[in-house]
Amino acid sequence: MSGMSGFRTVRGMRDFLPEEASLLRFVEDRARKVADLYGYKEIITPIVEPYDLLSAKAGEEVKSRMFIFKDLGGRDVALRPEFTASVARLVATTLKNEPKPLRLFCVGSAYRYDEPQKGRYREFWQSNYELMGSNRPEADAEILMLTNTLLQQNGLRRVAFKIGHIGVLKGILEHEKVEERIQNAVMQLMDKKQYDDAIGLLKNSGVSENCTSIIQELVKLRGANVLEIVKKIERLVKNYEKSIEAAKNLREILRLISGSECRIDVTLDAGFARGLEYYTGIIFEMYVTDLDIALGGGGRYDRLIELFGGEPTPAIGVAHGLDRIMLAMKMQQTRPQTQRRKTVMVVAVGDDVADETSRIAQILRESGISVELEIMRRKIGKALEVADKKKMDYAIIVGKKELDEGAVVIRDLVRREQSVVNIGKIVERITLVEGRDLP
Amino acid sequence: MSGMSGFRTVRGMRDFLPEEASLLRFVEDRARKVADLYGYKEIITPIVEPYDLLSAKAGEEVKSRMFIFKDLGGRDVALRPEFTASVARLVATTLKNEPKPLRLFCVGSAYRYDEPQKGRYREFWQSNYELMGSNRPEADAEILMLTNTLLQQNGLRRVAFKIGHIGVLKGILEHEKVEERIQNAVMQLMDKKQYDDAIGLLKNSGVSENCTSIIQELVKLRGANVLEIVKKIERLVKNYEKSIEAAKNLREILRLISGSECRIDVTLDAGFARGLEYYTGIIFEMYVTDLDIALGGGGRYDRLIELFGGEPTPAIGVAHGLDRIMLAMKMQQTRPQTQRRKTVMVVAVGDDVADETSRIAQILRESGISVELEIMRRKIGKALEVADKKKMDYAIIVGKKELDEGAVVIRDLVRREQSVVNIGKIVERITLVEGRDLP
Repeated sequence: MSGMSGFRTVRGMRDFLPEEASLLRFVEDRARKVADLYGYKEIITPIVEPYDLLSAKAGEEVKSRMFIFKDLGGRDVALRPEFTASVARLVATTLKNEPKPLRLFCVGSAYRYDEPQKGRYREFWQSNYELMGSNRPEADAEILMLTNTLLQQNGLRRVAFKIGHIGVLKGILEHEKVEERIQNAVMQLMDKKQYDDAIGLLKNSGVSENCTSIIQELVKLRGANVLEIVKKIERLVKNYEKSIEAAKNLREILRLISGSECRIDVTLDAGFARGLEYYTGIIFEMYVTDLDIALGGGGRYDRLIELFGGEPTPAIGVAHGLDRIMLAMKMQQTRPQTQRRKTVMVVAVGDDVADETSRIAQILRESGISVELEIMRRKIGKALEVADKKKMDYAIIVGKKELDEGAVVIRDLVRREQSVVNIGKIVERITLVEGRDLP
Repeated sequence: MSGMSGFRTVRGMRDFLPEEASLLRFVEDRARKVADLYGYKEIITPIVEPYDLLSAKAGEEVKSRMFIFKDLGGRDVALRPEFTASVARLVATTLKNEPKPLRLFCVGSAYRYDEPQKGRYREFWQSNYELMGSNRPEADAEILMLTNTLLQQNGLRRVAFKIGHIGVLKGILEHEKVEERIQNAVMQLMDKKQYDDAIGLLKNSGVSENCTSIIQELVKLRGANVLEIVKKIERLVKNYEKSIEAAKNLREILRLISGSECRIDVTLDAGFARGLEYYTGIIFEMYVTDLDIALGGGGRYDRLIELFGGEPTPAIGVAHGLDRIMLAMKMQQTRPQTQRRKTVMVVAVGDDVADETSRIAQILRESGISVELEIMRRKIGKALEVADKKKMDYAIIVGKKELDEGAVVIRDLVRREQSVVNIGKIVERITLVEGRDLP
């Protein structure tokens, strides 16, 4: 090997070879279809954004893992670690006068300097849906339902939603006048399931014994009997007005999705928190039983657009990790069958048939047939071997003798039989199913 | 406006709003379809690559405009300025044992710090096709024909190819033993059409008067009567063996594409050069008469894979500028009609119909109809106004009275008429065309 053959991808980045690439494009396509079915319009924002924008509400952890640099004009820029900041920028500026609600969809790659591991890359793919302008529980329910539709469209089974509501806990902390910095620290500890540390921090901040014991009880409440758990939450937080409101909001959302056609499998977790600081209402993550990492997640963030300089705009959004959805699809072996074009290798015999060969290839392509020209000047036997290896459907052999009769030889590579076919009939011959897929 | 509302895109980057985004996705989709029709497999490579890889054959101009930085692990990385280096990396490593020819396709964004202007952005989109492993003229012809198919698929008219062959000039310079550094400088001057400077440089390098006068004649040869021009080239370079070979290769390629079905409009330009140093054979660019910038270009580079540490692999490739194709489509007003889903706004009247409303929305979506739920609790009149403004096809009004009869009100927003329809019949009612598109 020469010195230069050591080229490889940057650590944490990866290539998608044809099979993987086609799966990613399939998932991307499903995401776009679901957007369309739910009335979400696609927008495409840059991968390179101002550092100030991306860091505005990113939280310390995300900020510390961003790809940050200066462009040649000395601007501080970064590669997007997620899509929401870019969407919020648009909603606060270019789209600020558009009628609400705004339903927006993005799909593409994002970048974080995380330690690479199963389902986690430094360049990763997401589909992202934002519903801006409505604070109604119907909006929350819609985001949950479209997420469920997306996972279904990819053939995933045993999908479970883990749901919490940041407002229940925030209602208590705000009522107890816990300062925001401590609130955020408590949420981050809870996100890591370090409940004892969270309680300890609250005790140190002078929160009453009564209050911390309520929170201790709260974080234990989880399970699939969701309406019962909401009832218990309501009983526990009965002295905290905003927490009661939050529990009521949670109940309405849960009722909407349980009443819907799509039978979402939900686990409610009253102690559930997510890393990002900007959530204000419901939060959720999606799992399949076969995989212990979340396929994605989202939640309500009613103050975000204001923070980006826009009008107060209630909002809810979700990001789906396409790499993880692909991983789950592979584990569940649910790779969907897509309609495949017929594939044909066209082989010219001799130098003087090049024009006709090229013309035949064009005729086939115009009929939606995938054509590979044999351009290595292989002998027919060798060419057929290659076509076989590539699992192509047909080979067309263009030779002087048949051409003089206006015909070519078509070889069916599956049935292993061949015949002479008039050029005017080759498309018909190849696209007709003729019982081939029958037993 | 608050201080934060000043967020905007980084200079040279841009947002695609829904209409633009949908056009880009359309063009991307056509590129993928053409890849499929010609047997090119899609691969997806990272946007962030090692600086060494991207700069290996980039040429000074591209190198000076790359987005370069260190990642958090101290690695020198850059955003890809084009796709060929990444594809070459794969062909020299992971794919090195795959049978030839390799037909590979990529599509995505690339990055160059150019001065922004019409059709030129710092984040731009390309589709890229590489045919590796064949040095036959059929390979060159295939790349030209698929490019023509792609432009046709996007509805572009008055497409012209400008074609040259780097081997004609290189054959002369190598025979005259001009050192490579000077050869590259001459090519770059020619790329900028500074022919006199190029000739001057050659004279200063001690090239014979006879030779420079041949080159002076050569660069004047251009036009649409391509076979005649090739004949003139052959006469001019008759003492340069490699140049004669190059002219013969050019003649064969031109014959193949002129004999093909796709009627490519070609201008031959014997003095044509392209900025990149790695071309070894035919080079070309595509134009439409309405736009003075190239829609893309490509050429043969038979030594590139070796330079990336792989086996000697003849190769030809093309990159299409999707932003420019979009621009040309807009100028020619050839925005293609894509099949649009029927769009329906579903409006609930009162609080107690939420479950049914959600169920109806799901039924419609499962039939491929795009549904927006009215989630702002607008009055019916206002909701219909919004649906009208959004040019939606239908509104479905879900009220207690009709629900009790198992029905809803469907309002045809185009015909401005409404009727009560049984829930079991709504899909049929909406998807049936019923002569609506007739006069």
